[in-house]
Amino acid sequence: MLLQALRQAVLDANLELVRRGLVLYTFGNASGISREDGLVAIKPSGVPYESMSAADIVITDLSGQVVEGSLRPSSDLATHLEIYKHFPNTGGVAHTHSEFATAWAQAERPIPCFGTTHADYFHGPVPITAPLTSEEIAGDYEKHTGAAICRLFDELRTDRVPAVLVAGHAPFCWGATPSEAAHNAVILESVARMAYYTIGIARDAAPLAQTLHDKHYLRKHGASAYYGQAKDEDK
Amino acid sequence: MLLQALRQAVLDANLELVRRGLVLYTFGNASGISREDGLVAIKPSGVPYESMSAADIVITDLSGQVVEGSLRPSSDLATHLEIYKHFPNTGGVAHTHSEFATAWAQAERPIPCFGTTHADYFHGPVPITAPLTSEEIAGDYEKHTGAAICRLFDELRTDRVPAVLVAGHAPFCWGATPSEAAHNAVILESVARMAYYTIGIARDAAPLAQTLHDKHYLRKHGASAYYGQAKDEDK
Amino acid sequence: MLLQALRQAVLDANLELVRRGLVLYTFGNASGISREDGLVAIKPSGVPYESMSAADIVITDLSGQVVEGSLRPSSDLATHLEIYKHFPNTGGVAHTHSEFATAWAQAERPIPCFGTTHADYFHGPVPITAPLTSEEIAGDYEKHTGAAICRLFDELRTDRVPAVLVAGHAPFCWGATPSEAAHNAVILESVARMAYYTIGIARDAAPLAQTLHDKHYLRKHGASAYYGQAKDEDK
Amino acid sequence: MLLQALRQAVLDANLELVRRGLVLYTFGNASGISREDGLVAIKPSGVPYESMSAADIVITDLSGQVVEGSLRPSSDLATHLEIYKHFPNTGGVAHTHSEFATAWAQAERPIPCFGTTHADYFHGPVPITAPLTSEEIAGDYEKHTGAAICRLFDELRTDRVPAVLVAGHAPFCWGATPSEAAHNAVILESVARMAYYTIGIARDAAPLAQTLHDKHYLRKHGASAYYGQAKDEDK
Repeated sequence: MLLQALRQAVLDANLELVRRGLVLYTFGNASGISREDGLVAIKPSGVPYESMSAADIVITDLSGQVVEGSLRPSSDLATHLEIYKHFPNTGGVAHTHSEFATAWAQAERPIPCFGTTHADYFHGPVPITAPLTSEEIAGDYEKHTGAAICRLFDELRTDRVPAVLVAGHAPFCWGATPSEAAHNAVILESVARMAYYTIGIARDAAPLAQTLHDKHYLRKHGASAYYGQAKDEDK
Repeated sequence: MLLQALRQAVLDANLELVRRGLVLYTFGNASGISREDGLVAIKPSGVPYESMSAADIVITDLSGQVVEGSLRPSSDLATHLEIYKHFPNTGGVAHTHSEFATAWAQAERPIPCFGTTHADYFHGPVPITAPLTSEEIAGDYEKHTGAAICRLFDELRTDRVPAVLVAGHAPFCWGATPSEAAHNAVILESVARMAYYTIGIARDAAPLAQTLHDKHYLRKHGASAYYGQAKDEDK
Repeated sequence: MLLQALRQAVLDANLELVRRGLVLYTFGNASGISREDGLVAIKPSGVPYESMSAADIVITDLSGQVVEGSLRPSSDLATHLEIYKHFPNTGGVAHTHSEFATAWAQAERPIPCFGTTHADYFHGPVPITAPLTSEEIAGDYEKHTGAAICRLFDELRTDRVPAVLVAGHAPFCWGATPSEAAHNAVILESVARMAYYTIGIARDAAPLAQTLHDKHYLRKHGASAYYGQAKDEDK
Repeated sequence: MLLQALRQAVLDANLELVRRGLVLYTFGNASGISREDGLVAIKPSGVPYESMSAADIVITDLSGQVVEGSLRPSSDLATHLEIYKHFPNTGGVAHTHSEFATAWAQAERPIPCFGTTHADYFHGPVPITAPLTSEEIAGDYEKHTGAAICRLFDELRTDRVPAVLVAGHAPFCWGATPSEAAHNAVILESVARMAYYTIGIARDAAPLAQTLHDKHYLRKHGASAYYGQAKDEDK
């Protein structure tokens, strides 16, 4: 029953990525976790979105073993699992090759915080992982990708930037739910696009002042937030 | 009765921002004013556009107190109010994070007038506010944002540029009605996009000659206008 | 009767500009000419495209006097008339503020021929007019704009480039019919966009070799054309 | 009967190019081959996509002679034929003027492999042909274009890059079927767009490390592939 709701939430998150133009063909994947059951629901590998139903969503345990479902899970499953294990408050993960965020990942540059749109969602630059070693690539590649993300956030010591660029690859985003993870992926692409335009106008554009960055992040998150009716809002 | 018409006009202006692709999720907000009643109608904070109705539009007085409506008004209300108080002929205000105008705001550069499309609507560059001080950010932030806009236009001594970039944030536009404010926001985004492309072609592109700038602005505005059937027209 | 067909063709050409995303609001205008009647049909000024019908298309003589129709013609009529008088084989003219072509006009740079798409339609760079003098702007501005176009083509001595950029303004295109004029406006925008991307990749990109430029233009135009079933074709 | 299935597959591939926004008007063409019959099915020249049916697809032999169909084949037929003769495993070819891939062709630069999206499909940079000589252009131009492609791949000694840029012109892509050729054309455009953005962020961006390039290509292709349910998959 709960798993059924989780499957539906994961399906909806995947379809949101399609609706927002973040995925091409079968690219991209979103997942969700039931912490109490220790189970993850994820998009199957290579099934067209148009014909995907909640029943196609694959259920695995935290070691990646399929528990329910007849399809093979997304090949990026191991990366999702590392993120779930590292961030205990995360309920959903979304991965896309959305084009502007991917371009920053390909250029191997973090996305600087140039404005309040970024600050509303990400409390700091969107960071980029270190390249994997040849051994990591040759071995359990997708798991090592996840490990590189976790190492990066251990260094950064923040849980207020629910997005990362994997160097030479593409972004991963997360959130309290699959829906929030997909939402953050959509925002990240807009932020990546505006950052691209910003440096096209002024190559040496300065990051947002820290006080303004804090102000915008905190008027939307945490105990002093005053944005929206309850949690969501305009800006 | 009049308030009902104002609510509908404000709803329509908000939906125009959606139709023209200027807003993502619940971003952006448009408002309108009834000068005789001293009341402002504005989008509620965080309500999805798809389900928004005229009844959701919040009515406040010029101090920002809610007079009618059960929802919380947009968190940018205080900025709108400063604009209404400063420009007595303004009947509507629109705020978006439209991506090209926002990129100019993030780059902290005014948008030069490079062509007649710009000159048709804005009699001069679209200016950018000075950054707020840490005290202004920590205090009544949204009101101080409005005050920074008003100070800028006091210096510029013009009422013929119904748009501004807030440094590090995004644009605000205004007009005689909520509809005109939204229209100006749409035009601003197109102008911002073309200015971006223009400097991509020629980094040192020259602004439009002043005589041509005046000609285009004045063939559309003021006593000698000869554009369109009545007020509106092609160009 | 013939005028009715002309009105319909002009309406269709205007709507093609809308369908292809070349115009915003009431921007842009297309016209057609009946050479035997010495009459021109043109979009009215400021009428929304959604509600425009063939009956709204205005008929004028070659001096710009309205012969039929109750609406005011596009304010750019005088520019269209100069083009008709100068190019005797022209049956239609289209003017837009399409964003990439306009950016080249704002940058005051001709669009170099970088590839065969350009060569298929324009036998040479898309040229740009000289700026108007203050006297020309203050006087019969729209007619002087047309005269600047004609002077430019007198110098270029070609009738194989059915498009021009007006410096600081936007493009005008023409063709044997209103439909062909609108078609050329759509192609011009694509060519302008690809030229913009080309110099973004290689600032010093070389124009297409003249032999290849000739080959592509001539396989589509003139006595030796071998493209398409009759006149139109893929490439 | 088989030819009927081939015609339908070729029609579908052409329509996929339209659906994905890769073609303007009648630009672009896709074809397929029946190796056993030695026959090629290709889009007719200049027929609008909206009205095209499987019956309009032209059947030719490998010398380009029309065997079935009343329409003239695409003028690029001779280029397709050279590709079929050179790559014995190719079942479909697609040619477009998609704007970012074309821009790289116009800039006369190969598309570097900057990321895993590229590596998933193309095992190396997307190469660019040498310019044709004046004699080649004046002679059997479209056949010489195909020959230039084949010479390039003879030098590169790879059959793992099913795409090429023709200098100053546009891309050609191929695959095991017409559908796969069209799919590769869509991916190429996305890859070309992201490569454009990448150098806009970091002009000196480094290509993907070879180990990661190999990993991604090989997890999708060949004996050790582990991607998707059968052949297709997400990434």
